[in-house]
Amino acid sequence: MQALVLERVGELTLRDIDLPQTVGPDDVKIALHTVGVCGSDVHYYTHGAIGDYIVKAPMVLGHEGAGTVVEVGRNVTTLKAGDRVCMEPGIPDLSSRASKLGIYNVDPAVTFWATPPVHGILTPFTVHPAAFTYKLPDNVSFAEGAMVEPFAVGMQAAARARIVPGDVAVVTGCGTIGIMVALAALAGGCSKVIVSDVSAEKLKIAGGYAGIVPVNVREKNLLDAVKAETDGWGADVVFEASGSPKVYEDLLRVVRPGGALVLIGLPPDKVSFNVNAAIAREVRIETVFRYANVFDRALALIASGKVNLKPLISETFAFKDSIAAFERAAKGLPTDIKLQIRVSPEKA
Amino acid sequence: MQALVLERVGELTLRDIDLPQTVGPDDVKIALHTVGVCGSDVHYYTHGAIGDYIVKAPMVLGHEGAGTVVEVGRNVTTLKAGDRVCMEPGIPDLSSRASKLGIYNVDPAVTFWATPPVHGILTPFTVHPAAFTYKLPDNVSFAEGAMVEPFAVGMQAAARARIVPGDVAVVTGCGTIGIMVALAALAGGCSKVIVSDVSAEKLKIAGGYAGIVPVNVREKNLLDAVKAETDGWGADVVFEASGSPKVYEDLLRVVRPGGALVLIGLPPDKVSFNVNAAIAREVRIETVFRYANVFDRALALIASGKVNLKPLISETFAFKDSIAAFERAAKGLPTDIKLQIRVSPEKA
Amino acid sequence: MQALVLERVGELTLRDIDLPQTVGPDDVKIALHTVGVCGSDVHYYTHGAIGDYIVKAPMVLGHEGAGTVVEVGRNVTTLKAGDRVCMEPGIPDLSSRASKLGIYNVDPAVTFWATPPVHGILTPFTVHPAAFTYKLPDNVSFAEGAMVEPFAVGMQAAARARIVPGDVAVVTGCGTIGIMVALAALAGGCSKVIVSDVSAEKLKIAGGYAGIVPVNVREKNLLDAVKAETDGWGADVVFEASGSPKVYEDLLRVVRPGGALVLIGLPPDKVSFNVNAAIAREVRIETVFRYANVFDRALALIASGKVNLKPLISETFAFKDSIAAFERAAKGLPTDIKLQIRVSPEKA
Amino acid sequence: MQALVLERVGELTLRDIDLPQTVGPDDVKIALHTVGVCGSDVHYYTHGAIGDYIVKAPMVLGHEGAGTVVEVGRNVTTLKAGDRVCMEPGIPDLSSRASKLGIYNVDPAVTFWATPPVHGILTPFTVHPAAFTYKLPDNVSFAEGAMVEPFAVGMQAAARARIVPGDVAVVTGCGTIGIMVALAALAGGCSKVIVSDVSAEKLKIAGGYAGIVPVNVREKNLLDAVKAETDGWGADVVFEASGSPKVYEDLLRVVRPGGALVLIGLPPDKVSFNVNAAIAREVRIETVFRYANVFDRALALIASGKVNLKPLISETFAFKDSIAAFERAAKGLPTDIKLQIRVSPEKA
Repeated sequence: MQALVLERVGELTLRDIDLPQTVGPDDVKIALHTVGVCGSDVHYYTHGAIGDYIVKAPMVLGHEGAGTVVEVGRNVTTLKAGDRVCMEPGIPDLSSRASKLGIYNVDPAVTFWATPPVHGILTPFTVHPAAFTYKLPDNVSFAEGAMVEPFAVGMQAAARARIVPGDVAVVTGCGTIGIMVALAALAGGCSKVIVSDVSAEKLKIAGGYAGIVPVNVREKNLLDAVKAETDGWGADVVFEASGSPKVYEDLLRVVRPGGALVLIGLPPDKVSFNVNAAIAREVRIETVFRYANVFDRALALIASGKVNLKPLISETFAFKDSIAAFERAAKGLPTDIKLQIRVSPEKA
Repeated sequence: MQALVLERVGELTLRDIDLPQTVGPDDVKIALHTVGVCGSDVHYYTHGAIGDYIVKAPMVLGHEGAGTVVEVGRNVTTLKAGDRVCMEPGIPDLSSRASKLGIYNVDPAVTFWATPPVHGILTPFTVHPAAFTYKLPDNVSFAEGAMVEPFAVGMQAAARARIVPGDVAVVTGCGTIGIMVALAALAGGCSKVIVSDVSAEKLKIAGGYAGIVPVNVREKNLLDAVKAETDGWGADVVFEASGSPKVYEDLLRVVRPGGALVLIGLPPDKVSFNVNAAIAREVRIETVFRYANVFDRALALIASGKVNLKPLISETFAFKDSIAAFERAAKGLPTDIKLQIRVSPEKA
Repeated sequence: MQALVLERVGELTLRDIDLPQTVGPDDVKIALHTVGVCGSDVHYYTHGAIGDYIVKAPMVLGHEGAGTVVEVGRNVTTLKAGDRVCMEPGIPDLSSRASKLGIYNVDPAVTFWATPPVHGILTPFTVHPAAFTYKLPDNVSFAEGAMVEPFAVGMQAAARARIVPGDVAVVTGCGTIGIMVALAALAGGCSKVIVSDVSAEKLKIAGGYAGIVPVNVREKNLLDAVKAETDGWGADVVFEASGSPKVYEDLLRVVRPGGALVLIGLPPDKVSFNVNAAIAREVRIETVFRYANVFDRALALIASGKVNLKPLISETFAFKDSIAAFERAAKGLPTDIKLQIRVSPEKA
Repeated sequence: MQALVLERVGELTLRDIDLPQTVGPDDVKIALHTVGVCGSDVHYYTHGAIGDYIVKAPMVLGHEGAGTVVEVGRNVTTLKAGDRVCMEPGIPDLSSRASKLGIYNVDPAVTFWATPPVHGILTPFTVHPAAFTYKLPDNVSFAEGAMVEPFAVGMQAAARARIVPGDVAVVTGCGTIGIMVALAALAGGCSKVIVSDVSAEKLKIAGGYAGIVPVNVREKNLLDAVKAETDGWGADVVFEASGSPKVYEDLLRVVRPGGALVLIGLPPDKVSFNVNAAIAREVRIETVFRYANVFDRALALIASGKVNLKPLISETFAFKDSIAAFERAAKGLPTDIKLQIRVSPEKA
C-alpha cells in the first residue's frame, strides 16, 4: 500500500510499504479521506526526533485523520461500513491503572500514530479500535473531521481549566494550538479570550472570531491589556500555548488571585519559574497531555455550529502532492494555520 | 418617596412610603431606571406568601433592578456617581461562616429585596452595599441590566452543573427561569440544550435561539427526543426548572450514567423521588438557591454578545402603570417572558 | 466443582456444578480462601430477586472473596501464581463510553458476581480478569481481604462525598454498610462521624471505634445531636445508609448550608423528597452505585492500620457449613455485622 | 503595654509600646496566653525582611496565638468573655471580590499580624475580629491552640490537594511546615505519607507518627522509596514543603500519572522547572498561600484526637524570656520543631 514515508530526517518518499491490515474483533478498517499535517509530523521530518522519540526506521507520517469505515470486527456494534468517522490516534491499554481511572491519555503503555516506532495514517487504509473511532455528524465534513484531533487538544485544555461560565481567559501563543485553545475556551464557557502573540498575521486570523481579543505583544503590554479587559482583577484562566519560556513571568502577572494557569506548550528546555509569585496568588496550574474523552464533545460543538474550524484550513493538497505539502508546512508561513492532504480521490 | 406597595394580598397601590435613604460608609445610593417583574413579586401579590415568607405588612415590590449611582459612601472606591449599575438583591452578613466560605447566598442571615419583611425597589431611589452593586458595561442597557438578576439564577445553575465543554443538556420547563438556564448552559459550554414544556408559545420563543432544541412533551416523548440527540447515551446535565413534580421520573430516565441533575424549580409540595433510579446511574444532584458570585460573569457574557436577553423583554411599562404591569403579569400569558417597569422618566 | 447453589427462592444446596475454568489471556485463576455473606446474597435466598434482578435458574452465591492466584493468562504481568488477592466482582466492557470515562461501575454492560444470571464465587476456584484482581499486602489477611468488597462501598461513598479534611459527617443507618461508610469517612478525612440507628447493639459495635459518635434515635433527636456536635451549624456531609424512607426529612435538617448528602441505601420504594428544603440549603446530593477505582485505596488504608475491619467479622463458617451460615444470616441478628465462609481447608 | 518589639534587624527588646485597644462592634479583646515562634518571626529578626515585606519601623512579633476573650463588641454573638480561643492572624476586606469568592486569603487588601507594618501579638492583649477568632474545644489546650496557625498551613495544603481517601502522599521537607502538612494529609485521608529530608533528627520526630514513612535522601533515593511504597505507580499527591529548588526534579519523578503536586515552600529564588515532565504526566499543580476556612477544621481534628500536635512543642519559654526564645530559635536546632512563649503568668 502506498504511504507517505519519512525515510530518515529530511527525506520523505511516497511509496509502497507493508502495513498491517488485519481487522481484529474490536477494530474497524477505515478508508482515509483527509489527513492534516501536524507540527509534530513536520518536526520529525525536519529534526528526526521530538524529545525522547527518535525516528530510527522508516515511518509513515500523519495522525489527524477522517475517512469512511469499510469493514468492522465481529464485536463491533457502534459502527458499520459506510460510516463517516474521525479517529483518536492514541491506543492505550484499556485494562491499565490509568485507563481504569479515565485518564487513558497518560497510560504509560499508550501507542500513538506517527510517533516512533508507530506508523501514521498518510496512506489509503488503516485499522483502528472502534472504541477510538468517532462517527461524524452529517453536517461535519471530512476536512473538519480531520481537524478534530488538533481541536481536541484545545478541548482538553478547556476541560482541565474547569471554566466557570463567564470566565475571562488569556491564551499566550497564536499558533494552531493557541487558536484551538481559544476556540475551545470560548465554546466552553468563557465570555472572551485575549490571545497574545508577536505575529500580526496570526493574530489577524484569530481576531476574526467573535469573542477573541488579539494582543500583539510587540506593540502592547499584555498585563495592561488584561487589566483593561478585567477591571484590574486579572484573567480567571491563562492558557500557555506558545512553548516560549519568555512568557512565564507574564503568566503569573495576568492571572487573577485564585485563578488557573493551564500549560499546553512544550518549551524547548526547562523554564525559570517564579514559585513565589504563583503561591502569592494561590494559582492552580493544570497541564495538558494530548486528550482523553473529548472527541465526542469536540464533534458536538462543531456540529452545533458553536465552533467553526473551516477558516483555519489554509490549503488542501492531493495525496500525490504530500511531499509538497510538507515542504510548504516546513516553511512555517504565518498565514498557514492548517494544511491538509486529501488521501481519497473523491471530493468533500 | 413614591413606591409600588403591596398593601395586602391582591391589593397594590402606588403611593408615598417612608424608606431609609441613609448612605452608610460602604453603601451607594442608586436612582432606579428599570425594574423587572418577577414571578415571586406576582406570587406575593396574588397569594400573599411564598412558603414561610408571609406578607404581614405593606411591602414595596421589585428586586430586579438597574439604575444610576447618585451618591457613594465614604469607603467606596469601586463606584462613583454617574455609574450605570445593576444590583444583587440579597445582602448577607459578610462575616458569617457561609460568607467566609464564599456561599453567601445560603447565609441564614441574608436579607433579600421584596421578601417579607424587606422592602423592594419599585421606587425612584434605593441604598445598597457597593459590594453587591455591579457596573454595567457600556454596551449593556438598563433594560438588560434589570435582566441580570433572573439570568443570574441560570448562571448559578450552569456553574453548579460543572459543565464540561461540549456537554448536552436538558432543561425541563420553558418559563422565564427555564430559558435563562438554557441560555446560561449554552453560553457556559454546552453544545446544545433540549428544552421541554407543554406550551408551544414558550417553546417557540426558546427555539428561536441557536443551540436550543425545543420539545413539546404534549406531542413527543422526552426520553425519545434525548436519545435521538445523544445516540442513546443520555444528557450530561439535566436542569429541572419547571417546579412540576410530574417531571421527576423523566429526569432520571434522560440523564446519562454518571450525569448530573440540577434542581432549580420549587415544587408546590414534596416530590415522589426514585432514589434507586438515581443510584443505578450514580447521578450527582445539585440544587440552586438564588446565586453567589455570578453577577459579574453574567454581565461579561451579555456584554460579549454570547447571551442576548433582549428578545425576552416582552413589554415595558411606565412607573405610573406599575399596577397594570402586575395585572398583566398575573394573567400569565404564555407569550410573556419578562415584563419590565421603567421607573425613571428618561429613555434607554 | 462443588459450589453453594441457590436453586430457587428459599432453597440452597452445596453441590457439584459446571463452572467455566478457562483462563483467558488477561485472566487469572484463583483458589478461593474466604468469602463473605452479603445482604444481597441473603436477599436472593429469601426473596429470589432484588428489583429487576430475578433468580430464574440455579445460581452460585457469593461475591466478597479473597484467595490465592493459581494460574495466570499469557498477557498478565501484574500477578503471578501464589499471590494472595481479593477481587472486584463487577466486570465492565473496558471499551465502553462509561469505562473510558473512568466510571466503569455504571457501564450498562457490567456483569457482577451472584447477580442473576451470573454465578458467584462460593466454590473452590474462579477465573477473573487480572485488571480486577488486587494483591493483598502481606499484613492483610484473607478474612480482611474478603471484607474489601463491602468496605469498597464505603470508600466509594467517601470519595464521592469529596470530604474536606476535618469535615463532620453523619451516617444514618448502622448496618454493615453504614459502619463501612463511617470507617471510610473517618479514614478519608472526617474529624468525627455521628452514626444513627435504632439498634442499641449495632450502635455499640460502631461506637467502639474512636471518632464515631453513636446516636440512638429511639432515645435522642438526631437534629439535636448534630447541632450539639457542630455548634448548631450542621454536618458537612450526611451519608444515607439505612434505606429507610423515614430518615429523608432528617437528612435535610442535619446537613449544613452548602453541605453534601450522599445516598447509598436503597429504599424499598420511592421516597417523599423535600426538594424545597434541599434547595434552601443548596445541598449537593451524590449517589453511590457499587464502586470504581477504590479497591487499591481500600487495601492501602487497611494495610496502614487506619482502618480496622477485624472487629466486624462476627463469625466464620467452614465451606461445608455454608447453608448454616446463610440460615444464620437470614435471622439478621443485631450483633452480626459480617459472617464469612472459609472455602479453603487451610487456616489463616 | 509591654511587647516583644523587633526594633530593627537583629535587635529585639521587651518594652512598653502603644497598641490600639479599642474594641469595635464586631471585635473581641483577647488576653494572650501562649504565642508560638514562627520561622517568619525569626527571619524578620535575623534578616529584617521577607521578600517585599521589609521592617522599616519597630514591630511587635508573633502571630500564632491562643488566649481568653476578655471583652466583646456589641454585635458579637458567637463569643463571650471567658471563652478560650485561638486567632486567624490575617484580616481581609470581607467585601472584596476575593472574600466574596471564599478565598479571602488572597484578598490583596489583607493585613497580617507581624508582617510589616502590622504589629503582632507577643503582648498581653490584642483586639481582633470575632469572625477570625475560634473557640477552643474543652480538650484543646492553649499550647495546642497556639499550634493551630502553623497546622492551618498543612490543612490548607491538604484541602487544596483534594485528597481522595487512601491516597499515598510524599512530603519533601521535614521542617515544621513539612510535618504539619504530613499530619494534615494523614488526617485528611491519606493512607500513608512518605516524608523526605536530609536531617536525621527531624525525620526521627516525624517518623514517630503512625503512617509517616521517613526517607533520608542522604542515604536513599526518593524515587526508589516511592516506587517501593506504591508498586512502581508513584504518589497520588506530592507536597513540596522544603523551599529547596533542588527537589523540583524529584517532584515530577515521584508523582503518578495524573497526580497532584502541591507547592507550599517558598524557594529563595526562581526554580528551574521541567514543564515537559509535568505535561507528560498531566500533573495538576496547586499552590498554598496561608489558609482560608480551615481553623475550625483544624480544631475539629485536634479535638477528635486524629491529630496530636503536642509532641511537636519542643520547649516553652516565659514571656520575660522571649528574647532567649528567639535566640534559641535563630540557632535552628534540628531537634526543635516549635518553640512557644507563655505570655500569661497562669499555667495551662
